[in-house]
Amino acid sequence: MADPIYTYNSLKDFSFAIFKKIGCPEDQAALATEVLLEADLRGIDSHGIARLSGYVRLWNKKRVNSTPNIRIVHESPSTAVVDGDGGLGLVVAPKAMEIAISKAQQAGTGWVAVKNSNHFGIAGYHAMMALPHDMIGMAMTNASPLVAPTFSIERLLGTNPIAVAIPANKQPPFVADFATTTAANGKLEILQRKNQQAPIGWVQTKTGQSSTDPNETKSGGALIPLGSDREHGSHKGYCLGAWVDIFSAVLSGANYGPWVPPFVAFLDPPSEPVGEGIGHFFGAMRIDAFRPADDFKTHMDNWILRFRAAKTIAGQERVIIPGDPERETSEQRLKNGIPLNPKVAEDLKELGGKFNVRL
Amino acid sequence: MADPIYTYNSLKDFSFAIFKKIGCPEDQAALATEVLLEADLRGIDSHGIARLSGYVRLWNKKRVNSTPNIRIVHESPSTAVVDGDGGLGLVVAPKAMEIAISKAQQAGTGWVAVKNSNHFGIAGYHAMMALPHDMIGMAMTNASPLVAPTFSIERLLGTNPIAVAIPANKQPPFVADFATTTAANGKLEILQRKNQQAPIGWVQTKTGQSSTDPNETKSGGALIPLGSDREHGSHKGYCLGAWVDIFSAVLSGANYGPWVPPFVAFLDPPSEPVGEGIGHFFGAMRIDAFRPADDFKTHMDNWILRFRAAKTIAGQERVIIPGDPERETSEQRLKNGIPLNPKVAEDLKELGGKFNVRL
Repeated sequence: MADPIYTYNSLKDFSFAIFKKIGCPEDQAALATEVLLEADLRGIDSHGIARLSGYVRLWNKKRVNSTPNIRIVHESPSTAVVDGDGGLGLVVAPKAMEIAISKAQQAGTGWVAVKNSNHFGIAGYHAMMALPHDMIGMAMTNASPLVAPTFSIERLLGTNPIAVAIPANKQPPFVADFATTTAANGKLEILQRKNQQAPIGWVQTKTGQSSTDPNETKSGGALIPLGSDREHGSHKGYCLGAWVDIFSAVLSGANYGPWVPPFVAFLDPPSEPVGEGIGHFFGAMRIDAFRPADDFKTHMDNWILRFRAAKTIAGQERVIIPGDPERETSEQRLKNGIPLNPKVAEDLKELGGKFNVRL
Repeated sequence: MADPIYTYNSLKDFSFAIFKKIGCPEDQAALATEVLLEADLRGIDSHGIARLSGYVRLWNKKRVNSTPNIRIVHESPSTAVVDGDGGLGLVVAPKAMEIAISKAQQAGTGWVAVKNSNHFGIAGYHAMMALPHDMIGMAMTNASPLVAPTFSIERLLGTNPIAVAIPANKQPPFVADFATTTAANGKLEILQRKNQQAPIGWVQTKTGQSSTDPNETKSGGALIPLGSDREHGSHKGYCLGAWVDIFSAVLSGANYGPWVPPFVAFLDPPSEPVGEGIGHFFGAMRIDAFRPADDFKTHMDNWILRFRAAKTIAGQERVIIPGDPERETSEQRLKNGIPLNPKVAEDLKELGGKFNVRL
């Protein structure tokens, strides 16, 4: 059965209506919708509207505050810590990134650590906010512990993604956005739905043995840091995930490591938290705080063209510039619509039924 | 035959004397020596005194300036671009990191991109300079193109390392320092010397096929980005390497991608450079620009103790905190001396012979 296809606007209207129903002010419902749907447009289906009912379940459990008082609690000329007041990460994160951008306008760069937030959608959205300002943008977040550091059988880190967005001139921007694990959790969810095995190196069992079962995390197993095993550098993926955790949460005063509250509402947060909510970290660097923006962007064009023109391994069509596939998917889905997994469409209709909103 | 062992002080005196012989002012010879030998102390033998004659060969070719005028050419309250004037990276890098630290004292954070520099030793040294100031330190650099992006047969990136140093309270600091490839080039050099094979996933042939020959880079092959193959996330390692390249060189005005001049003196730099020398990027973030340093460091202790106490996979002794092995090696080598590969010792003696300096 082919996946049902929805226009961007129909999903947008639906998501906006749901966010309003749970009490979000109009502007925040619109912002949360834009951030959420950017994932669907860019083809990162696991982080888009498929999560809408998850956010609503957290709100039901009073773990999301739909009318947050998002505020700076500490600052310096180039830094701030933002308290998200338990708001949707989809709203807290872009507000924090705006602060980073405004700090960069004054001080050359701006760096904002966020506590007391929640899942923020795709990191790439927030990093890309810097681009129209001729700035480099960065975004990272910690997340529910699903990942075992090298040699560990305990899950102490989230998939902790990093995004870096860098403007170019005539070329589209460089946009890297990746989980610091071998495979993102969304890829495992796809295998679960299709009843397929995972490659060795993506997950381990609860005793730390190699496994190809994409359901391992449901029985005490774990995702593996980028690198897959010690011999192939999993300690480096562990370093990356740890770095994201510390910048996002230890700097801000959020929960870190195994104390990060789970995204799923059926699991309670740890009873003795070490901070508030989950944490994010954002950066904005004004290009012309380093060199004239036009010089930089012309060289970025040169960089991009050289890498795109690289000779490929036989059978491979091209060397990919980070951001190219997502931008292409986005253009295509804006035109032709967004396919939803039938189970996701069903779940959204049920959600709409509860709130009297039609999909 | 056991490796000959030298005291830290004997290697220090030797290196200092050689740097003076090639014309470095006394303070710069001392600084270059300290940075270089930190690699030997920490067990990263490929980046230490084993490279000393490589630096001298570059100086012979007039590709290293031993009396550089290192200066800021562009700045904002939280940023600077430094022109290394072709100096030793071992001298330029710590001077640039000092500028980052001094910017952070004023603006909360400091970010310095460097052009017209050279190989800077281990990234970790520079990042760790932030620690005594209760700051987080970061350091990255681009390097000679040895790495093929995912799907490419061309070598367009260096092993482009990233270091992040984070202070704690009673615990030793968190210090991550890693190449953005599956394996650092130094690990391949060890296999070459021992005439052993590399694991699949470290290198590819000149047509992009898997290989276990550690000599592949000598015949047109390439190192592989962290992740090993597309299925295991090599595109993420490629993103990391690209990020380091762009921050280090496109922001500063250095050479990037395939234009980065080779470290080895027997290969000439590209005839049509796109910038000056190689590039680095440094960051310093004052902890108390985010939250009181004592709060942060107490939570870092908690983070470190929790990760160190993680239950391990059977047969594994412990979960490693980034920086632990290098610190332990350093303590041990300061006490018991530094073993040198016999070929390296021989090479140093020959070098000493040329300059009338005794090892």
